[in-house]
Order: sequence, then C-alpha cells, then structure tokens
Amino acid sequence: MKILLIGATGTLGKAVAERLGSAHDILPASRHDAHLPVDITDTASLHALFERTGNVDAIVATTGSLHFGPIQTMTAGQFHIGLMDKLMGQINLALIGQHYLSERGSITLTGGVLSHDPIAGGVNASTVNAALEGFVRGAAVDLAPGLRINLVSPTVIRESLPAYGPFFPGNDGVPAERAAGAYVKSIEGAQTGQIYTVWQ
Amino acid sequence: MKILLIGATGTLGKAVAERLGSAHDILPASRHDAHLPVDITDTASLHALFERTGNVDAIVATTGSLHFGPIQTMTAGQFHIGLMDKLMGQINLALIGQHYLSERGSITLTGGVLSHDPIAGGVNASTVNAALEGFVRGAAVDLAPGLRINLVSPTVIRESLPAYGPFFPGNDGVPAERAAGAYVKSIEGAQTGQIYTVWQ
Repeated sequence: MKILLIGATGTLGKAVAERLGSAHDILPASRHDAHLPVDITDTASLHALFERTGNVDAIVATTGSLHFGPIQTMTAGQFHIGLMDKLMGQINLALIGQHYLSERGSITLTGGVLSHDPIAGGVNASTVNAALEGFVRGAAVDLAPGLRINLVSPTVIRESLPAYGPFFPGNDGVPAERAAGAYVKSIEGAQTGQIYTVWQ
Repeated sequence: MKILLIGATGTLGKAVAERLGSAHDILPASRHDAHLPVDITDTASLHALFERTGNVDAIVATTGSLHFGPIQTMTAGQFHIGLMDKLMGQINLALIGQHYLSERGSITLTGGVLSHDPIAGGVNASTVNAALEGFVRGAAVDLAPGLRINLVSPTVIRESLPAYGPFFPGNDGVPAERAAGAYVKSIEGAQTGQIYTVWQ
C-alpha cells in the first residue's frame, strides 16, 4: 500500500512507520519535511501536498497540538489552539484527503485517552479528543462507499513520560510500538468508524 | 435558585423553563431577548450579560447551530459553523460563566445523540456533540471545588420532527418535556461530569 504518514518525525509517527515496515510504500510528511512539507491547519498546504502525492491507499495522522492549562484562567483564544490544530487540522486532512484515496482507501486519525479519563488542566484535550471520536463515527457512515476511517486513542506514550508524566499521575504510559499496532489494525483491517483505544 | 437560561425561546428552552416551574427564579436570555440579549459566540456579549445578571446559581444552555450536509462536499468553513456556534458558544459560556456562579452553582450544556448514533450528513453534529461530552468530563475535574457541570444529550425532539424527522429514519423523537427532566436533574441534583442521555 502507498501510505501517507503525517507527523512522521514524532515519537508515535516513527513507531508507526517502523511497524508498517517494508511491506508498504510510506510517504512521510511533516511540517518541516524537505520532500513533503505540510501544515494541516492550512487547507492550501494540504491541497498542495496531495497534488504532489497523487492518490494514496491510506492516510495516517499522528500529529496535532493542544493547550494544557487550568480552566479557571482559560481563554477562548487558548481553547482555539486545540480546536484549530489537533481537531480541525485532522478534519481538514480527512475532508481533503477523502478525494485522494484509492477505491478501498482508509484514513486513520489520532485522539487520546483524555476524552474519557480527564486530568487537571486537560479540558482542551478532553474536548478535542472526544470531538475526533465523534468525527470518525459521523464520517464513517457518510464517506463514499468502500472508504474507511478510524481513530487511534492512545494514553500517554511511555517515551514521552519525561515531558508529560507529571500530568498523568499513576499512569505508566504505553510504548509507542504498542500504540503503533492500532494504526496497522486500522490500515490493514476491514473495520470503519472505530475507536481503537490503547489505554494500557 | 436563580437560573440563567440561554436559548429560552426555543422548543427545548421553553420546556425547561416550564419544567423548572415556579420553584426557581428563571432569567431567560436569547439572541433577540429584550432584557437579556446574548450572542454566545461573542465573549464580549457574554461578559455584558453576566454584568447584568450578577451571580447566578445555575447556568443552562439549550442553544447552538450546526451544519448539516454531506461530508463529500463539506468545506472547512462549513465545518466551522458547528465548532464556533454550538461548541465554542457553549464553551465560552462555561469559561466566562464559571466566574459568576454562586458557591454550589452548576452549568448544564446541551449535546445530542449524534455523538454516538451518526446519520448521513451529520458529521459536524457528531463531532460537536462528542466534543461537548469531552468538555464536560474535562471541566468537571478542573472547575473550582463545589461547582458542577453536566451535559444533556437528547435525541431529536418530537416537536421538531416536522423539520428534522427525515434525517432520523425510524426515530420517533422524545417530547421536549421529557428531555427537560434531564436539565432539572442536572440543576437540582448533586452529580458532575455526567452525560444525561435522553435517547428514547
């Protein structure tokens, strides 16, 4: 399969690329990639990307920014960070990318555990991750017949514990390599509209 | 209790006001209200509203617009309709309103069944309604101690079937009066971070 992987330079993206292995033709893209640079918050950038890649068999996103901070001082502008980046970025990718998928193509997006397991300062993440679950359920029944879309919802990635661990008390995280398995399941499997949780 | 009800002129808002009855002091607000006009997509409008009401014991929203249409032709701009109105409107209300709640005050927002039970053309609604579920779960653990927040998630309101029925095949809807019960439960009850589904 020809697989477009956006966020290929991240911890999770690298693990997904490795786990998909040599069986597939992976097109790595990211904000500062020399060959396939893309800003998923910018629809023109996404159109330019797909004009370069042509049709693909799978689109995967392992990227997206959120705002962390206490709700008591949170502003609408801070809340927009996650809405415009991790949420609308991945939605832009799906809305545009659906037209560049081969006949049985799939889209796999990335949410996260905070949709259902909230933490202090995580309301933006809880909102965005839950929104992505709803998007995938809604899109799955509305995409052109044969196209599929799923969401991988990991807990904190073990390799990222030094940075994010303090926000997740008692959570040992999951290795990126284990979370990557859910992306393979989405890409090579037959299901659609699913949330693949990798929470422990 | 002094209860601010935003969306008081809608089918659901009227039913909530009726069901809360004469036991409470209800402050009805809506976009074109003569006394308490408010546009929840505009943070300045919300600040002006709360300057007029002062502290309240409960804040309720039964309002918010969404975009309905096929995903295959949906644009980012169309998707923004629900994100900026039903989603960010209610989030703005919560972010600002939390500072105008009395000590044991509550916020009750409105989602909807499409978060989990998608329909054709409903991906914007599925996304927004799921996002509101995540917001309420995330906010509940982060608000000042004693404050509560819940979401009411109704299916299509029976009184609205003439307009929306064709989008919901096989769905008989629920009477607004029954959905209104969930708002009373949220306001007068003790729970927080809950999604009260009124799906049948």
